Amino acid sequence: MGILGIIVEYNPFHNGHLYHLQISKKLTNCDYTIAVMSGNFVQRGEPAIVDKWKRTQMALKAGIDLVIELPVVYATSTAENFAYGAVKLLDSLKIVDCISFGSEKGDLSELTKIAEILLEEPIYYRKALKEYLKSGITFAKARELALQKVINNNEIEKILQTSNNILAIEYLKSLKKIGSSITPFTIKRKGSLYTSLELKGEFASASSIRKHIFEKGLEGLEKYIPDFTKEILQSSFEKKQGPISLEEFSNILIYLLRNHIPLNHIFDVSEGLENKIYKASYKTNNVEELMKLVKSKRYTESRIRHILIHLLLNIDKQIFKEFDGPNYIRVLGFNEKGKEMLREIKKKSPLPIITKVSQYKEKLSNTKMFEKDLFATDVYTLAYKNSSIAGLDFIHPLIKL
Amino acid sequence: MGILGIIVEYNPFHNGHLYHLQISKKLTNCDYTIAVMSGNFVQRGEPAIVDKWKRTQMALKAGIDLVIELPVVYATSTAENFAYGAVKLLDSLKIVDCISFGSEKGDLSELTKIAEILLEEPIYYRKALKEYLKSGITFAKARELALQKVINNNEIEKILQTSNNILAIEYLKSLKKIGSSITPFTIKRKGSLYTSLELKGEFASASSIRKHIFEKGLEGLEKYIPDFTKEILQSSFEKKQGPISLEEFSNILIYLLRNHIPLNHIFDVSEGLENKIYKASYKTNNVEELMKLVKSKRYTESRIRHILIHLLLNIDKQIFKEFDGPNYIRVLGFNEKGKEMLREIKKKSPLPIITKVSQYKEKLSNTKMFEKDLFATDVYTLAYKNSSIAGLDFIHPLIKL
Repeated sequence: MGILGIIVEYNPFHNGHLYHLQISKKLTNCDYTIAVMSGNFVQRGEPAIVDKWKRTQMALKAGIDLVIELPVVYATSTAENFAYGAVKLLDSLKIVDCISFGSEKGDLSELTKIAEILLEEPIYYRKALKEYLKSGITFAKARELALQKVINNNEIEKILQTSNNILAIEYLKSLKKIGSSITPFTIKRKGSLYTSLELKGEFASASSIRKHIFEKGLEGLEKYIPDFTKEILQSSFEKKQGPISLEEFSNILIYLLRNHIPLNHIFDVSEGLENKIYKASYKTNNVEELMKLVKSKRYTESRIRHILIHLLLNIDKQIFKEFDGPNYIRVLGFNEKGKEMLREIKKKSPLPIITKVSQYKEKLSNTKMFEKDLFATDVYTLAYKNSSIAGLDFIHPLIKL
Repeated sequence: MGILGIIVEYNPFHNGHLYHLQISKKLTNCDYTIAVMSGNFVQRGEPAIVDKWKRTQMALKAGIDLVIELPVVYATSTAENFAYGAVKLLDSLKIVDCISFGSEKGDLSELTKIAEILLEEPIYYRKALKEYLKSGITFAKARELALQKVINNNEIEKILQTSNNILAIEYLKSLKKIGSSITPFTIKRKGSLYTSLELKGEFASASSIRKHIFEKGLEGLEKYIPDFTKEILQSSFEKKQGPISLEEFSNILIYLLRNHIPLNHIFDVSEGLENKIYKASYKTNNVEELMKLVKSKRYTESRIRHILIHLLLNIDKQIFKEFDGPNYIRVLGFNEKGKEMLREIKKKSPLPIITKVSQYKEKLSNTKMFEKDLFATDVYTLAYKNSSIAGLDFIHPLIKL
């Protein structure tokens, strides 16, 4: 038996995800699949459209055997931190053989080369980078030019332009950094680009599906999402537990900013940016508008989103120094095969497995990262339109199929 | 000419207010009227149904000549602090001759007696109070029994049961405390009790009018509010700037509580109450429900409301020690007579008059209290349903009639 690990958000689960899962199983020849999944907040720097338990249901219905939560600290951070947290977690399970991720490139050789250079930063690369930075361009652009110079491949720019390639490079960097024995695979992404907002082609992007849901509801998505996704979303919306967007947290975020809550303890905040964000909060009470006001060539929207989410979830940048990857395995759901794997993980992994949340204090010597997950749920459920209780992590049953 | 001062909220302005104003002018024989009015948050511990500028319009239309804002620090505090701030402000103008307030009693003699005892706390009163407190009853009840014993009047209980009598006593206490030369008058309240939620009788209470607006809109209120009130409310609602209730701030408040923002710096918080409030925030995401969960014989709803509003507005109890009453005269609006009075106030009052908010830093040596008013507006406007800007105090024109 082979065990496949994948890193997902399923926000929401769609046919492109199903395709990736099925091809990955075939390609890696694995019979068991573990997904490390973002919880209630996702890497784009926003809340997931429905909560983590509903998305775990989707994952299990799709044939995933075990779903583990990526701690929110990593799930809502930069591509680099996100990838490191997820890969480290998969590696810590000590039973995963392969990892498979999508990329626009669809081929590991160039991606691996880039990952190695970025990780090792050889002197000739650092020199080139320094030169380009002097000319006043952004870090991302300077890095791209330095890589191009070093690898001598004029495809680099194209490769670094798409988000799945960037994540793929980060996964490869992380595997290398921790000296993991997991074998990486990549599958060429089909269908629309991640960022496309149009519903079209064989596979629609999760962004375009979310956009459709917010604007028009669930009808018209049949071609792009499995029936079970539609049913799970439908029942969530009927319970008034979604669809949830960042705008639901506009009031809280603008309030915190107008109250001048310090931002300097948040990852990726510079002084200039802090002031720009404060100022923008005086011009609007809508968080999407706020981001439009702040973003510039220098400050990308993605960076601002991450800052706002870390503000909302009270995540201090210090936490990334305090931990070297997740220090627990939080199980969200599993089927029979997943149960089997959990027994193996228990034997082999150095990390505690958390299935009963009430035991977390006994199981963890440092509870800080886990408590951020708990708080993230308490914030997330504020957006439920029926009255919501906090502490849902303590009482929500595991998802079993 | 005589100058009448009144203390109001006009939330919203109704026929009972009009009656009080007209009778007060007659009774005191004054031709000029100044209202000290709560700003965007009111003494009940909630946001006003429409903002302070709209309510200033109502006041001027009703025949008030000058409207001055009661700093939010006082406007949202206990009856004692509210009354002290308002009376001190009226007295500081140095031109007010009379003050007129409603009361259920409608007669000053007993109210004055009570006020004097409460202010001076003679030894025989303190002794009686101590005795009653020992028996484990609430402070309010013990005070009532001690007063009854001392004054030997079995009407005391009844007098202390209604909110306008209580406020009246606090006004009288404050006048006495600061040695004011303003002459107090009281007018017997007609119509429903302050707390009545039913629209009935000749005069409906502001609470019942607000309830009607939230549930059914403006139609059916013609008997209880002047046309100008209806028009001003109508145009506010069309601009999506109201009606505003505390529930609009549910998310922010529950978020702050779930994030365990300390409450011990807030006026009237005890440790037991702090924990009770935190716990309740885990059981609901609705602030009205939260109050129901927390309130008990020991912790009144009014006390909890004040705490929550002070949390929302970031008002530290320290501020009450730092200031002895308002340190500025913030003008919201006036007519020709009001302008005349402002000239007099400028000559006679020790306090700076603020008509242009942009000048506040030059005019005030301690800006803390004023900045709470500015922040209160920035929080209040978060509830505007069209996009809102902060800093409205800096750009909103004075209301002139």
